[in-house]
Amino acid sequence: MAKNLTTRSEDYSKWYNELVVKADLAENSAVRGSMVIKPYGYAIWEKMQAELDRKFKETGHENAYFPLFIPKSYFSKEASHVDGFAKECAVVTHYRLKNAEDGSGVVVDENAKLEEELIVRPTSETIIWDTYKNWIQSYRDLPILVNQWANVVRWEMRTRLFLRTAEFLWQEGHTAHATREEAIAEAEQMHDVYAEFAESFMAMPVIKGVKSTNERFAGALETYTIEALMQDGKALQAGTSHFLGQNFAKAFDVKFATKEGTQEYVWATSWGVSTRLMGALVMTHSDDNGLVLPPKLAPFQVVIVPIYKGEEQLDQISEKVKVIKAELEASGVSVKYDNRDTHKPGWKFNEYELKGVPLRIGIGPRDLANETVELARRDTLTKEVVNLGDLTRTVQERLGEIQKNLFDKAKNFRAENTHQVNTWDEFVDVIENKGGFVEAHWDGTPETEDKIKDLTKATIRCIPNDSVEEEGKCVLTGNPSIRRVLFAKAY
Amino acid sequence: MAKNLTTRSEDYSKWYNELVVKADLAENSAVRGSMVIKPYGYAIWEKMQAELDRKFKETGHENAYFPLFIPKSYFSKEASHVDGFAKECAVVTHYRLKNAEDGSGVVVDENAKLEEELIVRPTSETIIWDTYKNWIQSYRDLPILVNQWANVVRWEMRTRLFLRTAEFLWQEGHTAHATREEAIAEAEQMHDVYAEFAESFMAMPVIKGVKSTNERFAGALETYTIEALMQDGKALQAGTSHFLGQNFAKAFDVKFATKEGTQEYVWATSWGVSTRLMGALVMTHSDDNGLVLPPKLAPFQVVIVPIYKGEEQLDQISEKVKVIKAELEASGVSVKYDNRDTHKPGWKFNEYELKGVPLRIGIGPRDLANETVELARRDTLTKEVVNLGDLTRTVQERLGEIQKNLFDKAKNFRAENTHQVNTWDEFVDVIENKGGFVEAHWDGTPETEDKIKDLTKATIRCIPNDSVEEEGKCVLTGNPSIRRVLFAKAY
Repeated sequence: MAKNLTTRSEDYSKWYNELVVKADLAENSAVRGSMVIKPYGYAIWEKMQAELDRKFKETGHENAYFPLFIPKSYFSKEASHVDGFAKECAVVTHYRLKNAEDGSGVVVDENAKLEEELIVRPTSETIIWDTYKNWIQSYRDLPILVNQWANVVRWEMRTRLFLRTAEFLWQEGHTAHATREEAIAEAEQMHDVYAEFAESFMAMPVIKGVKSTNERFAGALETYTIEALMQDGKALQAGTSHFLGQNFAKAFDVKFATKEGTQEYVWATSWGVSTRLMGALVMTHSDDNGLVLPPKLAPFQVVIVPIYKGEEQLDQISEKVKVIKAELEASGVSVKYDNRDTHKPGWKFNEYELKGVPLRIGIGPRDLANETVELARRDTLTKEVVNLGDLTRTVQERLGEIQKNLFDKAKNFRAENTHQVNTWDEFVDVIENKGGFVEAHWDGTPETEDKIKDLTKATIRCIPNDSVEEEGKCVLTGNPSIRRVLFAKAY
Repeated sequence: MAKNLTTRSEDYSKWYNELVVKADLAENSAVRGSMVIKPYGYAIWEKMQAELDRKFKETGHENAYFPLFIPKSYFSKEASHVDGFAKECAVVTHYRLKNAEDGSGVVVDENAKLEEELIVRPTSETIIWDTYKNWIQSYRDLPILVNQWANVVRWEMRTRLFLRTAEFLWQEGHTAHATREEAIAEAEQMHDVYAEFAESFMAMPVIKGVKSTNERFAGALETYTIEALMQDGKALQAGTSHFLGQNFAKAFDVKFATKEGTQEYVWATSWGVSTRLMGALVMTHSDDNGLVLPPKLAPFQVVIVPIYKGEEQLDQISEKVKVIKAELEASGVSVKYDNRDTHKPGWKFNEYELKGVPLRIGIGPRDLANETVELARRDTLTKEVVNLGDLTRTVQERLGEIQKNLFDKAKNFRAENTHQVNTWDEFVDVIENKGGFVEAHWDGTPETEDKIKDLTKATIRCIPNDSVEEEGKCVLTGNPSIRRVLFAKAY
């Protein structure tokens, strides 16, 4: 192809980086580790947001907004939480600049030092539970079902567009409940919401399960996760939902009066997905020709490219396109008509292939005469000639087929790349030579998990919800195990 | 009333602060100057966002996202810009915390000092123009019509919920054009969009005009503004659109190849509105009983309160409400049914009055028998009995009337509080004793404007678009003037 895109087999990682930039999704900025999300990429993120927000509201949640800055001392209040985040956070120490005395620009004004340093939120449990303390007095104030769309900062040393950036966009739900059972039900519900979104909307199959102790969120009693498999055989954690027990309520002293008049600590959950999903989307479906977008997330589902010589032909085609476009849009399909005269049809075909537009309609003078168009699918790269009278129906059918095909393809890929192993040699062989998910027995100890990670870089992605009880022996230690867990190298 | 709300005549400022908190719009956080936007307040902001976003897209703009952090050196590149923002910006100097040696918590890790300090964006012109430099090579790349929804930080010393907070939410449009004329047309278009939004959606009349040199945005050649008048006679700048000329293009060396092959600097605009609009909304319409919301911005337009004794009556009422609610919703009206048994009807009436819900439907056993409901308007505090058969039509009519009434009322208030003055004594008298907008002649110099500000705290809010040429003498200096400008004390 003429896209100068590195192929996946040449260098998967390079392919990804190039594709994200060339398809106009995002680019690196002048600020180390921070990205610019470009309009085309942001339009996909907006579609994700809209659908997730709809699902959150449908399940009774409201949005709110909490401060970007968190007083340093708040961090220390929940012990495992500070351990989890202190090593990678941006710290605000001053609130003013002044002109340098040598005229070279501006310098930090040392007279404007904060009494207490502020942390740019890496996640908002602490500031939110400090707030909830004032919102909750009695059982009547519960549950609180709140979500926030926000930016967060984690000072990662090695960053990659979307997958790991110093600043990223996300949503974080923070709920408060009267009982343990209700909080667990909430965490599980949001786990389901995420899985449903990933599969139905992103066409990305996921394994649902819980994290091992080592891999849990800092401060959680249980972390529910959805894990997807990328085309290079590495796993990607796509969303997590945490049952936080009473840890944050205790750290911030949030109690409520029960119906019976006793005082109890509040039960908590938090749950989030981020712009990381954009990376998952790219790495699940795209190919050596560029992006492949599921119709439900494509900024526009159909692009129409006129093929013409001279202005008169273009006018005739544009007349016809007006009708086609109106009819498609009336049926709920989003359409872009690219009639720019600054670029040739071939260039445009290439461009929209690179950008993953699900369907392309080509229309030239012969099509006008025959009352037809050429319809091309991005996922299969196949073409068909369609009569204008059948176009809207055909487009709708194809969009449905593409959405389904992408999911099926990814699911087949995952099935082909999931291996059950029973010995350490097999384990190492699969992890090092084949990649993919590995279902193996583990003795349940953090020490063994650490050792396996040190030896192979593989981690336990999750203990799958659907793993059946089965007697076996840990692949590393030979100690008894009652179920297989899911290992993989991961992003 | 039983709301324990300070009245406006007692203490307008206290009334505002209390109302914002009691109506669940926002509250102060533990972080100095940063607020928590509560779900009810955020729901109003979401409605503002949705409508503005729709208007932006309708006028050809796309959303994108740029980094939160800006390298300190970028600030120095545009001279007036750094003067405008350096004195009030949050500075990130470190990227890690560590455990204190005395075990007292966490401290800043001095080994993790940034080479160059980062500023938390107070506005994004610098980082965006640094990015545009790579996006723009030729006239084919123009215009760029991009908007960003984001949080920004300005380290204000005196803060007030929504009106002036250290962190606030806003949108900032940043566009790039090939010609001066096109950039000016864009800035003027967005000025119109803001005015239209304020008047049609917020029911808040605004004066459109341009800022004097003193009051311009740091880096702009022209600042277009919409100015609203609050009930205490102070003005509030509700939105601004800036023609930036080539200032930022020159600062960041952004040139493009013209059709003719020459190299020219790009022309720029930026424009923004913020959560400050929430404060303007409250202060334009609300009264001593609480919020008054225009129907187009109300999180729910109608609340239904059942009046009952015992569960059986509630069940009967709920059956009927189901039908009423479905019919109202089908006609596009948003409805909340509050059937909580933890609160009495009187308490609920009070609560929804405080929260400014445009219409309240009360329904009890007698209404069931008569096939009627009681319909109460929040703006006029009037009630009527409506037959169920007429309800949906009546609700729609009343919502339209409320939206219009609020606008008319605010416009009348403004007319009554706009004074033409011709002498300095009159000027001082009006500014100090009456408040409101003052139309007065001014000699056009920054020095006179400064002097007037020092003497009275009044500033030039704008040179109105519709001010007619008229010979006169400056109220302060007596020097010649050719048009009146608009003065006021302002938020």
